[in-house]
Amino acid sequence: MISGHIAIVGCGLVGRAWAIVFARAGREVRLFDAAPGAAEAARRQIERDLASLAQQGLIDRPEPILARIAIAATLAQALDGAAYAQENVFERLDIKKAVFAEIDRVIGSGTIVGSSSSGIPASAFTEGLRSQARYLVAHPVNPPYLIPVVELVPAPWTAPETVAEIRALMEAVGQVPVEMSREIEGFILNRLQAVLLMEAWRLVEEGYASAEDVDRTVSHGLGMRWAFMGPFETIDLNAPGGVADYARRLGPLYQRIAASRAQHKVWDEPLIAKVEAQRRAKLPADRLAERGEWRDRRLMALAIHKREAEREDEARAARDGGKAAP
Amino acid sequence: MISGHIAIVGCGLVGRAWAIVFARAGREVRLFDAAPGAAEAARRQIERDLASLAQQGLIDRPEPILARIAIAATLAQALDGAAYAQENVFERLDIKKAVFAEIDRVIGSGTIVGSSSSGIPASAFTEGLRSQARYLVAHPVNPPYLIPVVELVPAPWTAPETVAEIRALMEAVGQVPVEMSREIEGFILNRLQAVLLMEAWRLVEEGYASAEDVDRTVSHGLGMRWAFMGPFETIDLNAPGGVADYARRLGPLYQRIAASRAQHKVWDEPLIAKVEAQRRAKLPADRLAERGEWRDRRLMALAIHKREAEREDEARAARDGGKAAP
Repeated sequence: MISGHIAIVGCGLVGRAWAIVFARAGREVRLFDAAPGAAEAARRQIERDLASLAQQGLIDRPEPILARIAIAATLAQALDGAAYAQENVFERLDIKKAVFAEIDRVIGSGTIVGSSSSGIPASAFTEGLRSQARYLVAHPVNPPYLIPVVELVPAPWTAPETVAEIRALMEAVGQVPVEMSREIEGFILNRLQAVLLMEAWRLVEEGYASAEDVDRTVSHGLGMRWAFMGPFETIDLNAPGGVADYARRLGPLYQRIAASRAQHKVWDEPLIAKVEAQRRAKLPADRLAERGEWRDRRLMALAIHKREAEREDEARAARDGGKAAP
Repeated sequence: MISGHIAIVGCGLVGRAWAIVFARAGREVRLFDAAPGAAEAARRQIERDLASLAQQGLIDRPEPILARIAIAATLAQALDGAAYAQENVFERLDIKKAVFAEIDRVIGSGTIVGSSSSGIPASAFTEGLRSQARYLVAHPVNPPYLIPVVELVPAPWTAPETVAEIRALMEAVGQVPVEMSREIEGFILNRLQAVLLMEAWRLVEEGYASAEDVDRTVSHGLGMRWAFMGPFETIDLNAPGGVADYARRLGPLYQRIAASRAQHKVWDEPLIAKVEAQRRAKLPADRLAERGEWRDRRLMALAIHKREAEREDEARAARDGGKAAP
């Protein structure tokens, strides 16, 4: 495991959440943001976020966690001696390029850097940099202290050891790293979300079902399996002979569904207006923020539930004499 | 709400689970299965399932629930005076046709019938029957006493009142009915599952990620949102201006992802072998059943978690003076 502190470069919503992840796990953190006063404001917001996490029982005491989060006056100071830096600047190619060029000028040989980029691949903003072998995308889902998956997406020149080190670091701080072998638009998570959303929009467009009933089909159906098993494990357990058995039985159905959607199209304005009207009838625009707080509370409760269920799995496996749950 | 008992026609895995749903909600249930002894065996299995549900805290006492489940000697006896019949025979068109023809001969004018068919539409096995206006598909997810969504899919001749009545019945017994306006292959749930699975298989085929990392991306990421919000509510809360704002911002990305998959193909044998090898390395075939028990325990725990979280939502809404969570 790599030692040294963690630098947070860019202290908006995503950077703040990463600071909590690392400090919660006992790592020293240094915040840096180029905007004057932004790091200080971020630290104050982190204090409020930690209080809310403590209230929900997700952390014990906020104080020691907050005490591990310091503020760096310059990028060089933030990076000096850092084991790892998580970059979270605004998602625009010119801004990513500028900040990585700056990082590259001051970075020491012991530091690796992951970008929180959700769409732009690392190859677009790290090519030709001196330390390009130690840069990659480490894409979180917001907020990473509640949703643990992190997509590790190397550029063609990212060193395998860089991926291995950041994977070990992420596991050590309680995240769930997944690895891509190479870049693809949308990475894994947003590609899976994209294809499901496209079918969801089509079902509403063609009048088969309302947006609300599509949502209920997922939140009271499909999503209940996928919250603790992935799609492959779900089908592996859904046919007597496992995944291959399932694939052969259901192949023809899936082939027909695919063929029925050969003509790709994404939402257009009339369709957007239709779904917008359905959503606003259900939730007025001035209550979006309040519903966002509901989502955060439910995510916290779900995170606690999953942690407890996983501990119960482990305890059961120990009782069964090391026959650990796979 | 329709009164009268509930008939369960076909007492395999699905029929048994439906019997628990209705009897748990206080309805009288009559089991019928054409195979001699099958209904009796089903009732004995239900007794074991109820004991397990009580152990997990999902029901209070099994005895009164079991006492509401009777056995009918004939189909006519099962249907006589029934408010509703849930058909769960083997998923093959000739078998569905035969059982619906038989139902049609003995059914009274006060009974409606939902088929658990997961793929065959009601129009394929109810056309021309005397009471065809009172037949439709009511597709559950297994087991419906843990996963509450039920897809209501009318044939062209199903009466709107039939859909409205079964919707009210399903809500009254604690299920979450979703309505399709007309038939489409795979209904909602399996179409959404299909498109996500197709992209998942492609990512593995092209070597971008392992099946395990695709699974982890869902179970520790995407699926954590979808377990309590649907895909539309998720994106509605993921852009400052709601769903329309999200659709316009992300439209180009989704369009490019769609275009990159213009050439549809489903898994072939080499790909099935690749994923099968990855899954069997993770979980040997002789442990599939044991892992299925793990899944059932986790589903039960998740069902309890969701019930408690929803009660907490309601209590909070009551405290806030009727400003109910949408």
